[in-house]
Amino acid sequence: MTYCVGLLLNEGMVCLSDTRTNAGLDNISTYRKMFHFEEPGERVITIMTAGSLSVTQTTLARLREAIEDPGATEETSIMLAPTMLKVASIIGGMLCQVRLEIDEKMATMKQAASASMIVAGQRKGGAMRLFLIYPEGNFIEATEDTPFLQIGEHKYGKPILDRVVKPGTPLADAEKAVLLSMDSTLRSNLSVGMPLDLAVIRRDACTVTRQRRIEAGDPGFRAMSEAWSKALRDGFTQITLGA
Amino acid sequence: MTYCVGLLLNEGMVCLSDTRTNAGLDNISTYRKMFHFEEPGERVITIMTAGSLSVTQTTLARLREAIEDPGATEETSIMLAPTMLKVASIIGGMLCQVRLEIDEKMATMKQAASASMIVAGQRKGGAMRLFLIYPEGNFIEATEDTPFLQIGEHKYGKPILDRVVKPGTPLADAEKAVLLSMDSTLRSNLSVGMPLDLAVIRRDACTVTRQRRIEAGDPGFRAMSEAWSKALRDGFTQITLGA
Repeated sequence: MTYCVGLLLNEGMVCLSDTRTNAGLDNISTYRKMFHFEEPGERVITIMTAGSLSVTQTTLARLREAIEDPGATEETSIMLAPTMLKVASIIGGMLCQVRLEIDEKMATMKQAASASMIVAGQRKGGAMRLFLIYPEGNFIEATEDTPFLQIGEHKYGKPILDRVVKPGTPLADAEKAVLLSMDSTLRSNLSVGMPLDLAVIRRDACTVTRQRRIEAGDPGFRAMSEAWSKALRDGFTQITLGA
Repeated sequence: MTYCVGLLLNEGMVCLSDTRTNAGLDNISTYRKMFHFEEPGERVITIMTAGSLSVTQTTLARLREAIEDPGATEETSIMLAPTMLKVASIIGGMLCQVRLEIDEKMATMKQAASASMIVAGQRKGGAMRLFLIYPEGNFIEATEDTPFLQIGEHKYGKPILDRVVKPGTPLADAEKAVLLSMDSTLRSNLSVGMPLDLAVIRRDACTVTRQRRIEAGDPGFRAMSEAWSKALRDGFTQITLGA
C-alpha cells in the first residue's frame, strides 16, 4: 500500500509520501513515490504516486520521455503545458493509457492493475494547484473547503488533518500535521513504511523550497511521534466522561 | 455502514455500536445493532452486528427462535450452551447458514450479502470472552495483547484505541475511549450515525451493568467531543517540529 498527502495552503503546498511497496506481504521493497519536475522560478510540478508500481513507473518514464522529446509541444510535455490544468490533463491521459495497456496484459491472468496520483504545481504568474488524478485519468482539485488530498491508505491519517488543516495554516504547522497524519498511518498499516519524503513548495517560489528524507529511526520524527502520543494520552486523561 | 467496538478488560467488557443503516446513500434508516441476551447472575451475551440488515435480522431472529424452542438443547440455544466458545460457535453457524441462504437469492441479481458480529459474554463461573465472528462463521477472540475488536468502519477509530486501551484500563476510561473512537468515525464516515448504544458488562456480574442510548445532540457526548477536539488542537500546538 501507500500513503501520500498533499496540502494546498495560502503560504504554499506541502507534500509527504512513504516509500513502501509490496507484492504480497512477503515481498516488501522501498521505492520513492515523490517526483519533482522543475525549472526553478518558472515552473514546479511534484507528482506523488500510489498503486501498481509497473503502472506508476511506466507513466513517469513516459512523461519524462515526452519532456525530452525534441518534438515536445504544449500538448505533450508537462514542462511546456500552458496551465496547471493542462499539466493535470496530460498526466491523467498518460496514467489512463498506461493503466489500460497493463490492465490488458494482466487480464490474461485474471488480474488488474491500477494507480492514482497527486499532482502539486505552480507556473510563474499562475496559481498554485493541487490535483488528485484517478486511475481513469479524470481528476479533482483541492479547494478552500478541502485543502488537502490523500491517496492510498487515507483513513488512519484523516482525523488529524480534518481537525487541524485550514487554508491559513502556516507551513511549519502544516509540516507537523502531515507528519502526524503519517505517524498514525504507519502505526496502523504495515504496508505503509519509512523512509518518508517531504517537500514544501512555497507560494510563488516555483521551485521545491524544502526537501527532506526522513529515515527510519530519525530522532526528530521519533521525538515528535512520542510527544504526540503523550499529548493524546494527556488530553484523554483530562477529558471528563459526559454521561 | 456501521461501527461497533467491544473491549475486553480486567474490570469488565464495554460495547458500543452506532445505529445507521443504508441501502444506498439516498436511503438511510436507524436500526439498533446491539442485542442483549441475559439470565441475570447466570449468563449474559451481547451481540453487535454489521453488514446486510437482512442477514443480521434473520440470524438474530433464528437465534431467538432456537432459545424459545421447547426442544432447545446445549447445541442449539445460546442460553443453554455450556461455554462461551459454544455460544460463539452456535452464532457463527447460524450466521453462515443465513448468509448462504440469502447469498443464493442475491446471486440471481449478481449481488451478494454479508455480515459480521461481535459477541461479548460470560457465564457464571466462566471467564469473560469477546469474539469477532466472520461472515463464514469462523471467529477470533480478543486477548491481552489485543483487548479490543471492531467491525464495520474500523479505521478512523482505531488510533485512539491503539494508544489508550490496555487490559488494565478502568471501565470509566474505557467508556471514554470507545466514545472518542466513535466520535472520530462519525466525523469521517457519514454512513455511521447517531444515536449510539453503549453497554458495560462488569466482570462476574453476568448481566448488563450499564446501558445508555446516546441520542444525536446529547449534551454530555457533545461536550466530550468538543473537549477532545480542543485537547487535540492544544496538543498539536505544543509539539515542536522535529526537523
